[in-house]
Amino acid sequence: MDVTVIGGVAGFLTSMAVIPQMIKTWKTRHARDLSLWQQIIIIAGLALWLAYGLLLGDLPLILSNSFTLFCYILLLTMKIIYDRGDKQRIDG
Amino acid sequence: MDVTVIGGVAGFLTSMAVIPQMIKTWKTRHARDLSLWQQIIIIAGLALWLAYGLLLGDLPLILSNSFTLFCYILLLTMKIIYDRGDKQRIDG
Repeated sequence: MDVTVIGGVAGFLTSMAVIPQMIKTWKTRHARDLSLWQQIIIIAGLALWLAYGLLLGDLPLILSNSFTLFCYILLLTMKIIYDRGDKQRIDG
Repeated sequence: MDVTVIGGVAGFLTSMAVIPQMIKTWKTRHARDLSLWQQIIIIAGLALWLAYGLLLGDLPLILSNSFTLFCYILLLTMKIIYDRGDKQRIDG
């Protein structure tokens, strides 16, 4: 297999892996076991990857990192909302 | 800031983000809300990134992907063990 293809498939998989996590979190309405810090660090890292892609004018970097960044921001929003719901159920 | 520095910090953050998730999972002994498919896809992707780094002889790619791959394999192991524990508590 061509080396560039291996790199491309690798990047595609690591970018898309967030999708099953989003679906699971959306369906179960629970994000208790997800680390808030993991999400914050990944969002910071992806924002820098996006800046790096923009500075280099590299379209694959820009597109894949925009998509994954958007997904992680949605996941973080779900975590904040669902964690509040879990806390209210425990407190109430 | 130098463009290479931005890329370096971006890579460092996205590689290291798994650490707080590992610590949280280890401490709480729960991984219910983590997607099994996310972990499997990330492990496949990181294995390909590592192969890509080895084929190119790129040391930063080899080192960072070896480390993150190792962490995700540990996290997957914890998920399998802790999910079994959660299931036994429910069934028992």
